[in-house]
Amino acid sequence: MAHLTVSVEYGIHCLLWLVSSGDKPLSSRDLAELQGISPSFLAKIFPKLEKAGLVMASEGVRGGYRLAKAPEDITFLDIVDAIEGDKPLFDCQEIRGRCAVFGQRPPSWATFGVCAVHAVMLRAEKAMRAALAQETLAGVANTFGRKAPPEFSEDIARWMQERFNARTSTRTPRPD
Amino acid sequence: MAHLTVSVEYGIHCLLWLVSSGDKPLSSRDLAELQGISPSFLAKIFPKLEKAGLVMASEGVRGGYRLAKAPEDITFLDIVDAIEGDKPLFDCQEIRGRCAVFGQRPPSWATFGVCAVHAVMLRAEKAMRAALAQETLAGVANTFGRKAPPEFSEDIARWMQERFNARTSTRTPRPD
Repeated sequence: MAHLTVSVEYGIHCLLWLVSSGDKPLSSRDLAELQGISPSFLAKIFPKLEKAGLVMASEGVRGGYRLAKAPEDITFLDIVDAIEGDKPLFDCQEIRGRCAVFGQRPPSWATFGVCAVHAVMLRAEKAMRAALAQETLAGVANTFGRKAPPEFSEDIARWMQERFNARTSTRTPRPD
Repeated sequence: MAHLTVSVEYGIHCLLWLVSSGDKPLSSRDLAELQGISPSFLAKIFPKLEKAGLVMASEGVRGGYRLAKAPEDITFLDIVDAIEGDKPLFDCQEIRGRCAVFGQRPPSWATFGVCAVHAVMLRAEKAMRAALAQETLAGVANTFGRKAPPEFSEDIARWMQERFNARTSTRTPRPD
């Protein structure tokens, strides 16, 4: 198992689709089916992205999610924190103060300042977070965009339109 | 919950005790009780450190664990990998190839090379691992050593000796 959950991967890929859709909202269900991932699982990720101010939701048959800010202003760190909740690399239990020779009263020299083990972990975490903060959604969307042929975006637009048509055509007609 | 488990914290603190004990082995049980942590939990960590070549075990009433190499040659990355098993930051599920418009056959442009999302995560992981590889057990042991007053190591030696005496005095005497 990896340190970051699969929710982070799903969340990032969805946000990349929202970059390409621009002002047109995409539904969580369509995004799930487009990518072959569980709709119910994805439905739990979007509220976290919304709460963090990365996406905004709109209601109705044409509703869905759009980015709440420019993709240049959304870093990978923002997304990881939104989904994982600013999970620390290391959760120091302060075991240095539990040493049996201290009885129940550790001396101040033993517990003063940050534990040296914790300090190492904080430096490693800082390095990781700095690397994630350097990358924006816009940067990665450009990488994806350069790889895809022009007809790909047309295929996607057609697929989305078919989904929308199927959804609206199955609605019960109003009685006259 | 943190990314790194409490096993990493316990493992590092035990190794720091082994730095100060030098050639004298310390038992896993004594180390657990000295630090107020579960002996059965700690007993599962030491085999991982031994398998990674960081400690070596000796049998018998004076047996226990010693460092298998100089503390200058044991990095925090070695310890984390020994305990966590080289757990990746991110486990790419290659969802880019599952896009519904590809049917079951993603084109090569879509799956060629490392996924751009995965590439970001690999850079963040590399930064974290580099920070962990920069720190050695010797460096952190020196930090601890500078804080402790001289009588602390005497207190520890006395505590260990009392534990040893208690263990050997309760053995059934041989019949004449």
